[in-house]
Amino acid sequence: MPDATKVLLTGFEPFEGYGDNPSWTAAERLAAEPPKGLEVSAVRLSCVYRRSLEELRTAVAEHRPSLVLALGQAGGRPDLTVERVAINVDDARIPDNAGQEPIDEPIVPDGPAAYFSTLPVKACVAASRAAGIPASVSQSAGTFVCNHVFYGLAHLLATEHPDVRGGFVHVPFAPHQVVERDRAGAASMSVRDMATGLAAMLEAAATTTTDIRETGGATH
Amino acid sequence: MPDATKVLLTGFEPFEGYGDNPSWTAAERLAAEPPKGLEVSAVRLSCVYRRSLEELRTAVAEHRPSLVLALGQAGGRPDLTVERVAINVDDARIPDNAGQEPIDEPIVPDGPAAYFSTLPVKACVAASRAAGIPASVSQSAGTFVCNHVFYGLAHLLATEHPDVRGGFVHVPFAPHQVVERDRAGAASMSVRDMATGLAAMLEAAATTTTDIRETGGATH
Amino acid sequence: MPDATKVLLTGFEPFEGYGDNPSWTAAERLAAEPPKGLEVSAVRLSCVYRRSLEELRTAVAEHRPSLVLALGQAGGRPDLTVERVAINVDDARIPDNAGQEPIDEPIVPDGPAAYFSTLPVKACVAASRAAGIPASVSQSAGTFVCNHVFYGLAHLLATEHPDVRGGFVHVPFAPHQVVERDRAGAASMSVRDMATGLAAMLEAAATTTTDIRETGGATH
Amino acid sequence: MPDATKVLLTGFEPFEGYGDNPSWTAAERLAAEPPKGLEVSAVRLSCVYRRSLEELRTAVAEHRPSLVLALGQAGGRPDLTVERVAINVDDARIPDNAGQEPIDEPIVPDGPAAYFSTLPVKACVAASRAAGIPASVSQSAGTFVCNHVFYGLAHLLATEHPDVRGGFVHVPFAPHQVVERDRAGAASMSVRDMATGLAAMLEAAATTTTDIRETGGATH
Repeated sequence: MPDATKVLLTGFEPFEGYGDNPSWTAAERLAAEPPKGLEVSAVRLSCVYRRSLEELRTAVAEHRPSLVLALGQAGGRPDLTVERVAINVDDARIPDNAGQEPIDEPIVPDGPAAYFSTLPVKACVAASRAAGIPASVSQSAGTFVCNHVFYGLAHLLATEHPDVRGGFVHVPFAPHQVVERDRAGAASMSVRDMATGLAAMLEAAATTTTDIRETGGATH
Repeated sequence: MPDATKVLLTGFEPFEGYGDNPSWTAAERLAAEPPKGLEVSAVRLSCVYRRSLEELRTAVAEHRPSLVLALGQAGGRPDLTVERVAINVDDARIPDNAGQEPIDEPIVPDGPAAYFSTLPVKACVAASRAAGIPASVSQSAGTFVCNHVFYGLAHLLATEHPDVRGGFVHVPFAPHQVVERDRAGAASMSVRDMATGLAAMLEAAATTTTDIRETGGATH
Repeated sequence: MPDATKVLLTGFEPFEGYGDNPSWTAAERLAAEPPKGLEVSAVRLSCVYRRSLEELRTAVAEHRPSLVLALGQAGGRPDLTVERVAINVDDARIPDNAGQEPIDEPIVPDGPAAYFSTLPVKACVAASRAAGIPASVSQSAGTFVCNHVFYGLAHLLATEHPDVRGGFVHVPFAPHQVVERDRAGAASMSVRDMATGLAAMLEAAATTTTDIRETGGATH
Repeated sequence: MPDATKVLLTGFEPFEGYGDNPSWTAAERLAAEPPKGLEVSAVRLSCVYRRSLEELRTAVAEHRPSLVLALGQAGGRPDLTVERVAINVDDARIPDNAGQEPIDEPIVPDGPAAYFSTLPVKACVAASRAAGIPASVSQSAGTFVCNHVFYGLAHLLATEHPDVRGGFVHVPFAPHQVVERDRAGAASMSVRDMATGLAAMLEAAATTTTDIRETGGATH
């Protein structure tokens, strides 16, 4: 019987004044009820530039995963979005939880301009959809702490753990967040549905090494 | 011990080629597990001009409700929308399930231009939100079969059952519908969450006769 | 040689803190360079419940038009929207320019629930589009001062000037407004393009008595 | 008296079945009436993977510009969007004008994952806005021919013309395109306004070597 695939799942602490962050609630739920064949550890990261990456480094060293999936919230997006690429820039539109607002600063001063996800992005999207949960490829993780963690993760794996694969997925608002802050008109998804889609993605990521050939592009 | 309030809940059959219609799935779920103090009957209407109104008339005669809530699907809207007003016009952008495409025809030739909902619209919105489910007032139910049923219901109650109150609520896509038809970018809501919000609305409607004073307007 | 058709065009003063209101700028432009065969008078209305209707009544009495087109701004909409129906309710989401915020109050206490536009709505949309300017039918003028003026106009014409036709068109943000208030992501239209589309609408309205049969409906 | 700055401006031929492409119409207009101090040459590129880059290489060799601005159309976006980064992947959602639909293929097999624009992105946005034309930073140019040309341009300049600066700007639909294809609900901008904003950007790019420090980031 093969060993379970060790997965490290990260979510974020609340930010922008919300009471919770579904990226963390969903991660906890998946760690409590992991997909068959997977051993899932969930770690909560600070929504703070730099500090989040130190916490991530510690978590990777401690859990020694073969797969890392970082989660973050993209309030307003209607579906689970699997990020294709992380770019080497911090450009804050709002302060992080420590009050930092970097503008156009590199995450790793001499690092490459970008890293592509080493997860099978298209297979993850297809798996979530097969489970009935809307998902799509995203061409940009933004320039806030989510992209920061995604880039930092990719750099860490590329330079120190070349055998470990990793990527990033954004989750929508949970319904109660739309109510809590009166975000009339904003899309949301129940945390239960997020977890269903993410579980399908983890299974796909664990078993797919060459991504499927299916478009996930954007004309712009 | 007071008698339960008799509620008639209607949903629609599938349309536009979808496999199901969450307005009906949610209605069935509520009839199976009604809110305390309510007796809920669910009736499925055809997505057909005229025929739907005959079915509605029969259902009202048979179930003798004191409250009627008609449900329909507004694919693309992100939340439960409580309709404020029904207008006396059919103007089809797509054919109904019998192939009819009326343009600018009155629903009731000598009827008033519009009817306002006789449900406490604002209280329904507030109740859903208090239950954690996004909801808002809508100023237009469109000009397709949903508005047709809403107007026909209002006319029926006003002219023949002045003691019965009634209104209309639109539900979003269910997640699987977005996947089924590849409606990338469309918002959705789980049927479970729809039912939670609608149950709260029914309880509010049953117990509120004078609506609360809270804005639900639109600048345009 | 036939007399020119007398048209009264109204626009609004600025509201919500903007420096100007393109509904007025566009009206002025059309009065200065009216379409052939039309005599256009432009009158600016206060963005104030009640007062706007008194100003409108005075303008109709003074100019004795055979056609009245009221304009307002619907910031965020991408095209010229010809309103189909005005409803008998004020429900303010923001204060008007006199600080009034009515909630669910009738505009005319014993008036009908709604009035349909007496302009050829579909012909107006088609004329603007034929001139290259995006336009569509709108099923709701909201519940703020625009709907208030549209309802008041329709009531005035129906009860006192049954031979005069009237309607309402919403215009988008002008580009400089999006910049002025940093409405990132909001659509806009140049005032020059607004005037082109509106001129085509006025010509269509002046020459069309029976509207064209073309869908302009909404499924919801 | 200093020599004029030589600018190469590229636009695309029509695609997706439209009759024209405003990225080219706007480029032609700017070449005919260049901003003071600039000498602007406009070259039209094929909307075809690879071929567009050969045409670009030829144009750079022929015109020997010190600044290259490539334009493309992003139908649906409401404003001028200055692209921050080009990524090394082609992933077509629709066929290019030669029928090619590459999926997840690198543009330059051993090229870096991404290139950042060497234009002062924030200064360009600010200049357009100061001219009254909505503009913003975009974090993704997509994965179609626009991103292909942007990446190819950046690679060409980085490897063969390190002294030449270059970038990419997306323009919205022109109003007539929305009408032509009945893209109800889509934002647009007049070509005249596009040219005004782009002229301001060219002047800013020609005179700004260190970009201004102003946020243009996205939380996601």
